[in-house]
Amino acid sequence: MSNGSIALGVIGYGYWGPNLVRNFSNSELSHVVAVSDLDSAKLAASKRRHPEIAVTSDFAELLRNPQIDAVAIATPVHSHFELALAALKAGKHVLVEKPLAPTSDQVRHLIDEADRRGLTLMVDHTFLYTPAVQKIRELILRGELGEVYYYDSTRSSLGLFQSDVNVIWDLAVHDISIIQYILDEDPVAVSATGSCHVAGSPENMAHITLFFESRCVAHVSVNWLSPIKVRQTFVGGSKKMIVYDDLEPTEKIKVYDKGITLNAPSENAHQFRIGYRAGDMCAPHISTKEALESEVEHFVECIRTGASPVSDGLSGLRVIEVLEAASRSIAQHGKPVRMEQPRRISDRARVA
Amino acid sequence: MSNGSIALGVIGYGYWGPNLVRNFSNSELSHVVAVSDLDSAKLAASKRRHPEIAVTSDFAELLRNPQIDAVAIATPVHSHFELALAALKAGKHVLVEKPLAPTSDQVRHLIDEADRRGLTLMVDHTFLYTPAVQKIRELILRGELGEVYYYDSTRSSLGLFQSDVNVIWDLAVHDISIIQYILDEDPVAVSATGSCHVAGSPENMAHITLFFESRCVAHVSVNWLSPIKVRQTFVGGSKKMIVYDDLEPTEKIKVYDKGITLNAPSENAHQFRIGYRAGDMCAPHISTKEALESEVEHFVECIRTGASPVSDGLSGLRVIEVLEAASRSIAQHGKPVRMEQPRRISDRARVA
Amino acid sequence: MSNGSIALGVIGYGYWGPNLVRNFSNSELSHVVAVSDLDSAKLAASKRRHPEIAVTSDFAELLRNPQIDAVAIATPVHSHFELALAALKAGKHVLVEKPLAPTSDQVRHLIDEADRRGLTLMVDHTFLYTPAVQKIRELILRGELGEVYYYDSTRSSLGLFQSDVNVIWDLAVHDISIIQYILDEDPVAVSATGSCHVAGSPENMAHITLFFESRCVAHVSVNWLSPIKVRQTFVGGSKKMIVYDDLEPTEKIKVYDKGITLNAPSENAHQFRIGYRAGDMCAPHISTKEALESEVEHFVECIRTGASPVSDGLSGLRVIEVLEAASRSIAQHGKPVRMEQPRRISDRARVA
Amino acid sequence: MSNGSIALGVIGYGYWGPNLVRNFSNSELSHVVAVSDLDSAKLAASKRRHPEIAVTSDFAELLRNPQIDAVAIATPVHSHFELALAALKAGKHVLVEKPLAPTSDQVRHLIDEADRRGLTLMVDHTFLYTPAVQKIRELILRGELGEVYYYDSTRSSLGLFQSDVNVIWDLAVHDISIIQYILDEDPVAVSATGSCHVAGSPENMAHITLFFESRCVAHVSVNWLSPIKVRQTFVGGSKKMIVYDDLEPTEKIKVYDKGITLNAPSENAHQFRIGYRAGDMCAPHISTKEALESEVEHFVECIRTGASPVSDGLSGLRVIEVLEAASRSIAQHGKPVRMEQPRRISDRARVA
Repeated sequence: MSNGSIALGVIGYGYWGPNLVRNFSNSELSHVVAVSDLDSAKLAASKRRHPEIAVTSDFAELLRNPQIDAVAIATPVHSHFELALAALKAGKHVLVEKPLAPTSDQVRHLIDEADRRGLTLMVDHTFLYTPAVQKIRELILRGELGEVYYYDSTRSSLGLFQSDVNVIWDLAVHDISIIQYILDEDPVAVSATGSCHVAGSPENMAHITLFFESRCVAHVSVNWLSPIKVRQTFVGGSKKMIVYDDLEPTEKIKVYDKGITLNAPSENAHQFRIGYRAGDMCAPHISTKEALESEVEHFVECIRTGASPVSDGLSGLRVIEVLEAASRSIAQHGKPVRMEQPRRISDRARVA
Repeated sequence: MSNGSIALGVIGYGYWGPNLVRNFSNSELSHVVAVSDLDSAKLAASKRRHPEIAVTSDFAELLRNPQIDAVAIATPVHSHFELALAALKAGKHVLVEKPLAPTSDQVRHLIDEADRRGLTLMVDHTFLYTPAVQKIRELILRGELGEVYYYDSTRSSLGLFQSDVNVIWDLAVHDISIIQYILDEDPVAVSATGSCHVAGSPENMAHITLFFESRCVAHVSVNWLSPIKVRQTFVGGSKKMIVYDDLEPTEKIKVYDKGITLNAPSENAHQFRIGYRAGDMCAPHISTKEALESEVEHFVECIRTGASPVSDGLSGLRVIEVLEAASRSIAQHGKPVRMEQPRRISDRARVA
Repeated sequence: MSNGSIALGVIGYGYWGPNLVRNFSNSELSHVVAVSDLDSAKLAASKRRHPEIAVTSDFAELLRNPQIDAVAIATPVHSHFELALAALKAGKHVLVEKPLAPTSDQVRHLIDEADRRGLTLMVDHTFLYTPAVQKIRELILRGELGEVYYYDSTRSSLGLFQSDVNVIWDLAVHDISIIQYILDEDPVAVSATGSCHVAGSPENMAHITLFFESRCVAHVSVNWLSPIKVRQTFVGGSKKMIVYDDLEPTEKIKVYDKGITLNAPSENAHQFRIGYRAGDMCAPHISTKEALESEVEHFVECIRTGASPVSDGLSGLRVIEVLEAASRSIAQHGKPVRMEQPRRISDRARVA
Repeated sequence: MSNGSIALGVIGYGYWGPNLVRNFSNSELSHVVAVSDLDSAKLAASKRRHPEIAVTSDFAELLRNPQIDAVAIATPVHSHFELALAALKAGKHVLVEKPLAPTSDQVRHLIDEADRRGLTLMVDHTFLYTPAVQKIRELILRGELGEVYYYDSTRSSLGLFQSDVNVIWDLAVHDISIIQYILDEDPVAVSATGSCHVAGSPENMAHITLFFESRCVAHVSVNWLSPIKVRQTFVGGSKKMIVYDDLEPTEKIKVYDKGITLNAPSENAHQFRIGYRAGDMCAPHISTKEALESEVEHFVECIRTGASPVSDGLSGLRVIEVLEAASRSIAQHGKPVRMEQPRRISDRARVA
């Protein structure tokens, strides 16, 4: 940690790595010392864009480098655990691209290792750092929506088939992390269905329902085989409802003052008690700050202060546990899988 | 059947009844003799709009009227069975608003009664008569989509809570009827989840997955508590994909010449075998003919010729069976429910 | 005027006439006694829908009928003057489809005739009675927009070519009436260009600029040869701006708290004084009441009370004067035409 | 010209300069030697992103550098002429951001200078190099649209007020260059209106009509004070019509097989001769290649071969002449201004 600027090593310079390098480089609080990748063409690309950053095909060089304070890992999922563990053992703070690791056991191992060494372990759940998701969380916390009834999301496109993970580990992971961030509640059970349309590939389409102890329910629909890109989430509450369209350039969040009203019960059939409320729609101004910029600042801040990141290991663990439950349910055609140890996020916070 | 024009009695003049009266009146092949409703205000409304049509609060008058050839029933679901059965016993051809009856046993009873008496029994699955759904069916039959991979539909709005049926009997019924019409395959199992956010009301939100023996999967999302109206269906195939948005005034169907291409297997990981194809999008011209007009013509034609309607009792039965399976799955939080006697529609046709 | 219900005769049962008949019939304050049209097929259609209303091919029968208090005229433009004048001379109150008459001289003649006889003369500028336009007017009057900078409207579709009027008399007439309704200011000059793409037809495409003494400017673009329907209006003010899309089913008006801010002048170039303000967008709830229903009620109310309609003869005259000026400018390829006697609407009101 | 790679100097590193540097750097046919800007913060930004590129606050250093083959100018409009002339005199090929220069006389001067020295002079009309505009041109050239009836464009947003040019020199310049590229015809006259809502600023809103000898008409609407960004162009032809929305991520161009049909004349009024044709809509696949990448390649290619660029000095001149005519018309409230020497582009090509 020279002169207060955190020195980074970035492992993996494929799709996401360049964004990490750019943001850690642009920040005044950090700089990138070296990049590693197995592909020499990618190292050449890094060199062309950032001639001042060293490149290597051996990630171990980064871990051995005493100048490097922290490591960001943006490699295929199957390598996350091994790389993150090695980095922690080398005394580096670690930021890992989502999902944190392929199994919850591995995630627990990483959490323990980081805790024991007093290092920051953070998972790159980028959406938690978007102004849009932060605004939704703020509206819920302020009580604007009333009781939250549901979260219903569709995330689809003609996407890159991945060989080592299926569509829920690639796309639904975003929604699971958002759900745990904006709702103060863990799911008690998961039912999911999925299907595979390309022989020999993992599931490319899935639907997941999360049950909660409250009346809230969450549903996530993901698809790698959609002709058009969809990133749309509905959040319904007893007072107001939100439509969040991440593809909208400016009006990403629309808050509807619409809903039902429950009148005093009457003798008649109950439908007479349910009325409709049609009110204004408002799209609050959303900052255009890049999520990864905020995230990188947050990671550096947590390294400095020792604070727990919003997307810390434990939060990454809870996402993985849901993905594992969903995978088991998919294998059983939707049969619900109970989550162990449901807990309130705030309880956990209180304990910690 | 005077002068070749089929004479109708319409039972129920609430939301849908006026549309039935208007279409049977406008057609040159039929006319409406009388309307019955329990609500005198509704009878007055009918009288104002159609002074020439008799009104009565007693549906039995319609059944006793020898001038009336056929009866159209547009009453709450719980009364469908009793009214349809009485009409058939009175020797009338019958058109019933969807769903045909609350239970599959009742539907079987109605089918038997109609068969025994040689009467036409038809269920008002209006969407089957829309030019958009007919175009989708035509594209699939012509092989334009290749193998059909999925049908994924969202049907939501701030909808009328009904007291006697939940949201799947009100909204998903449309998709189930469309699915059975455009795919030549019955589902083998159903997994569904649903939730209720108003105490004492039936489910207002549900997600249903239909499994087929082929790789095809269907998913239907329905919601009475959505701030905006959504009527959007994706149909994905191995060659082309369709986005069908029923709220679009003219370009309801968009056909995308987009998809994945599977190259010859290589030694490398399989992702190298999957390529992406980006092609044109085309929105075929869709007729603007009102679905109910076509449906009414079809009903009259079937009465005249004795042909089986597209939406005959058997087709209505298969829809009900799926809804019943979905209801059972909802009660078990998504546990899959196997359908009895899965059969190809074409097999049935061949047998029949 | 029997029993307080105003008795109507409707002349012309083509495109718009049926809407007039339906609304005057549905209102509790009025009823339709007779309909006239030269086309017997149209009279038959009226008879089918409204058996209780008399039909005739001779409009003079309506004028002679002492039971009829008022006449609504929905015929081709070239017949408006003759029919309206005859109706006034027969002592009937008159509602005329827009535009009121083909020339401003004829309109003045009608105004004089109505004034002399103490009869209500109203022009059917339907948009003034839409909840959306009334909301825009309300927002401007309340000062929400600040100083109004511009009104910029596009109104196009693959429209019916009319033989007796060009596209500005068919479509721009709506915007001209809206502009005079929501702005408290008459234009001082008009520049317009137009073009004709079908030999022997009137102009099918035109662009009109209205200049005002204030900084406000209005622009109207109309087109009968557009592949898609567009009904979009931007209203920009110093504080807020409105986007009004009449094709949106519910969110017709969006109010943007966006704009520029002018900082204190500095020594530097002036661009440093102009800043940008990005705020919330809000779509106020708009009633779904049909405009023609409100309009018909207003007409009846004015007949009863003797009050001047919002769209009275004088307001119709001012619209025609702008259309005449625009026509003259089109003939001269955009050369500006000054309007005579520009006047504040409120001045006129104060005088009257 | 070392090793065949064209060596660039880039003058101006504000909004557009970084894009030029990036594209000239990424191309294998060119590289950037040095960047100049008066603002040291901008030079620092260049250094951070491209440490290998020299920076200087004195553009003359670039002109004196014998290693530099060509200069790209991305400075405020008022400096274009002086800088381009100096660069040509220094023997450099020149690419100038649009508009080429503030007056047509200056542009003629630059064209002469480049011609005399055998240097490439190109203006950065980026839109001509977009796949979308090239597709529109291709469709017109292939006769798919039939006779082109109109080009009608809206280009607005809450835009940066510029101190040295008004909105037509900033935004309409794009449409004028597109119009001259896709239509084989120069306008014969221009009528334009404009308005200014910020005291002391140039016009921030304008509407321009271009008249042609054929029946074609073009209209361009530009606005710096629009609450939402609009980039929409309609191109209507006798056979088909195009809607081009540059903000659509993928379906930028929609081709409508819709229009009017002219039937054989009848005795009746002419409207009976005009019918409507409703056909399919098709959105052809559009490449996602960045326009500036194609443009940079084209510039380098023209330098190598001596060919005339698509956006050469003469094409830049014709754009400026239209802007000058529009400016004169704006000053006279829409009075049409005739263009001198209208000529067919193909005639010019034939002569040249």
